[in-house]
Amino acid sequence: MRTMIKDVKKHDGELVEICGFVKQIRDKKTMQFMVVRDVSESVQLTIEKNDENAEINKIVSSLTVESSVKVVGKVHVDDFVKLNGVEIWPKKIEVANLADNFLPIDMTDFNETNRDKRLDWRFLDLRSREHQLIFRTQTVAEMAMREFWLSRGFTEIHSPKLVGNPSESGAELFELEYFDRKAYLAQSPQFYKQMGIASGFERVFEIGPVFRANKSSTTRHDTEFTSVDCEFAWIDSFEDVMKMEEEWLHYVLKSVKEKLGAEIKEVFGKEVVVPSLPFPRVTMEEAKAIIKSLNYEVPPETKGDLDPTAEKMLGKYAQEKFGHEFIFVTEFPTSIRPFYHMYKPSDPSKTLSYDLLWNGLEVTTGAQREHRLDYFVRQGIEKGVLPANVLRADGSVDFDAVPQGMQSYVSLFRYGCPPHGGYGFGLTRMLMNLLGYGNVREVTYVYRGVDRLYP
Amino acid sequence: MRTMIKDVKKHDGELVEICGFVKQIRDKKTMQFMVVRDVSESVQLTIEKNDENAEINKIVSSLTVESSVKVVGKVHVDDFVKLNGVEIWPKKIEVANLADNFLPIDMTDFNETNRDKRLDWRFLDLRSREHQLIFRTQTVAEMAMREFWLSRGFTEIHSPKLVGNPSESGAELFELEYFDRKAYLAQSPQFYKQMGIASGFERVFEIGPVFRANKSSTTRHDTEFTSVDCEFAWIDSFEDVMKMEEEWLHYVLKSVKEKLGAEIKEVFGKEVVVPSLPFPRVTMEEAKAIIKSLNYEVPPETKGDLDPTAEKMLGKYAQEKFGHEFIFVTEFPTSIRPFYHMYKPSDPSKTLSYDLLWNGLEVTTGAQREHRLDYFVRQGIEKGVLPANVLRADGSVDFDAVPQGMQSYVSLFRYGCPPHGGYGFGLTRMLMNLLGYGNVREVTYVYRGVDRLYP
Repeated sequence: MRTMIKDVKKHDGELVEICGFVKQIRDKKTMQFMVVRDVSESVQLTIEKNDENAEINKIVSSLTVESSVKVVGKVHVDDFVKLNGVEIWPKKIEVANLADNFLPIDMTDFNETNRDKRLDWRFLDLRSREHQLIFRTQTVAEMAMREFWLSRGFTEIHSPKLVGNPSESGAELFELEYFDRKAYLAQSPQFYKQMGIASGFERVFEIGPVFRANKSSTTRHDTEFTSVDCEFAWIDSFEDVMKMEEEWLHYVLKSVKEKLGAEIKEVFGKEVVVPSLPFPRVTMEEAKAIIKSLNYEVPPETKGDLDPTAEKMLGKYAQEKFGHEFIFVTEFPTSIRPFYHMYKPSDPSKTLSYDLLWNGLEVTTGAQREHRLDYFVRQGIEKGVLPANVLRADGSVDFDAVPQGMQSYVSLFRYGCPPHGGYGFGLTRMLMNLLGYGNVREVTYVYRGVDRLYP
Repeated sequence: MRTMIKDVKKHDGELVEICGFVKQIRDKKTMQFMVVRDVSESVQLTIEKNDENAEINKIVSSLTVESSVKVVGKVHVDDFVKLNGVEIWPKKIEVANLADNFLPIDMTDFNETNRDKRLDWRFLDLRSREHQLIFRTQTVAEMAMREFWLSRGFTEIHSPKLVGNPSESGAELFELEYFDRKAYLAQSPQFYKQMGIASGFERVFEIGPVFRANKSSTTRHDTEFTSVDCEFAWIDSFEDVMKMEEEWLHYVLKSVKEKLGAEIKEVFGKEVVVPSLPFPRVTMEEAKAIIKSLNYEVPPETKGDLDPTAEKMLGKYAQEKFGHEFIFVTEFPTSIRPFYHMYKPSDPSKTLSYDLLWNGLEVTTGAQREHRLDYFVRQGIEKGVLPANVLRADGSVDFDAVPQGMQSYVSLFRYGCPPHGGYGFGLTRMLMNLLGYGNVREVTYVYRGVDRLYP
């Protein structure tokens, strides 16, 4: 029976079996020392060179770093042992897989190897404690997300990634041959989660891959990532969407702090902060005024959107004014939001939508959606997504005039689709924020970008 | 504040707000009746035609079935009301979205419409109680799967679906243009979950989409489905894999029974059976003998595999002999298993692998994997996946001779990959078994097949 290395110390004087990778080997004249690491901890093995140990001595002499071994030995708790005050005296060592002598990346100091090389050898790169903690954090966070949603009556969906017609812009679409026609890879589950609402599911969520044929190679761009999405019905306002999201994040970060807060602090030096409720909110107009008062003006190229500098300033403002890592920016201009967002009734130049900034980094776009067929069609025409003749002179909708690629979307609102809203959340951005990484390549299990399709 | 319809009865004499779809309307001379349905239940609305109700009467007269409405009204518990002994006397009805008069599918009896038409209008098809229960069952089952795995120290991964080189056969691959090269859609996360083992994660799982360019149009074939996969290290035998899976299924089905057993019984007439532990096991040799004793012989085209008839017979055998819905069939012939399965040391014509049958339907393939570089390479050469010159005359591996498409896979076993095994499980097959569906199209949220890329 295997003992996890973190539990070895409880077995002083007993024989235990441990399994793991060889982290260090020191083969001295009269003694041999090894460190073995499993997913939980590392431990020192100490072997005297003598006749009784001859076989073990021979194995250790031929061992290489990063080989996997199974060791049976006696536990010896001893304060003089630097590594956790415990060592194991092996009786038997089995080599499960002997590693090549030459390791392609530096595994004692991962930062010594350049990132591209590390990503080539991602499975070795992921053996570091830091990198393993990234994905344990992701696991805990996702589980908490689902726990919260299930407690609120959500249904989990798996929407298709192969789509016949793209529901959004074609610029970043991957196209493929699908038997005798073309298919595309889904850029977001937007249509399918709204379909869940039209299906009467009332509350749906999905955590799954999305694809963007994006040529940018920045620290934040990738061609495939895990999107975290939810959508729910019978909201009165996009305020309900923000309320759901802030309570969800509160629950998720509380769970991460409880389960991994101490370890994250130790490994990354970062405090997991459980955000207080409610999160601060500013309208886009207020946000612009704040930025202006700090002597910055968002460049006109953003067309009314915030740029990364402005987002950072608002993050700092939230921290200084409210002592909060998060801030909602609401009522984004209609001009920079998709046509399916609901417009503000009293001022249709604004949408009932928001972005959520976390330490000045955008992690969410959320909105109430337009569920009324006539408004949906009118907004589609205004944005050029639908041809003008879809709306007849009498205000009724001519479904035959809807282009094939938009028929499914328009049809959703034809048979009683209730009011609804939702948000999309970036899993990698959460991990970057929580653990202090600056590059999406580090926090993705196996990164995909314009220049990287391997391993 | 909205009240869910299932809770309305608790509010006798009070005003409540309910939201949902209009299920039925009867507009009589002196009275109007409506049934409104939300995700939880249905309720009758009763409205007298009179001056006081004039506005509501007008709304009800213009309403259509499947419109979404918000209703404020007084609850009246009355045993004479057929539908749950309660009705609501509306004070206010708001129409959120008025449905077209003509519904494209029959929503009072879904079986009246042919399946293809229903799938065209999947969002209407999904409004039935049966269909909603499919996805609530899926949600509960998946949550239980994750709970179990997390309690056993597994890490959740999201592996890339865009891959540079297919790790398995090319016959069913979708290919796409990826900037200036070709990419493929992952047919399984096999390589990436084994990579998790080589990365020292020790235990990983993934629930995510996989893609098969399969031209078959049977009741079980699709081109995209949700694959449920796990892999874990430091096993002694594939028996450890079967043990993990049976305990996992026991936990999952127990959770489904507790949370939805009564409702599944009511709606589908099916009893959720929590399987006893351990599940019965037979070797392939024993299975063949059992089948033979029942006067059936598997046709030679299967090349030593079981065919659906044989699987059904074994399912029946498990039920009759052990009173069990499940049976493991072990030690599949090497000839019909992939090269990365571990072969039986005492008889390399057999693999240390298994299939799991549930009521005679295959739901899993599992195995111990070959983690020893030399064996892995030799088996790859034997199966024609690797060229013969990868193995030098002295038994060492010539990595330069490994074809580019196999380099990542071979490399996994070069630096200390521990022993491991895992299984893949079919989510739709579970739902078909649990709820009694015979077609994968019914239990997939939005089905994809050779003839279906919409909606």
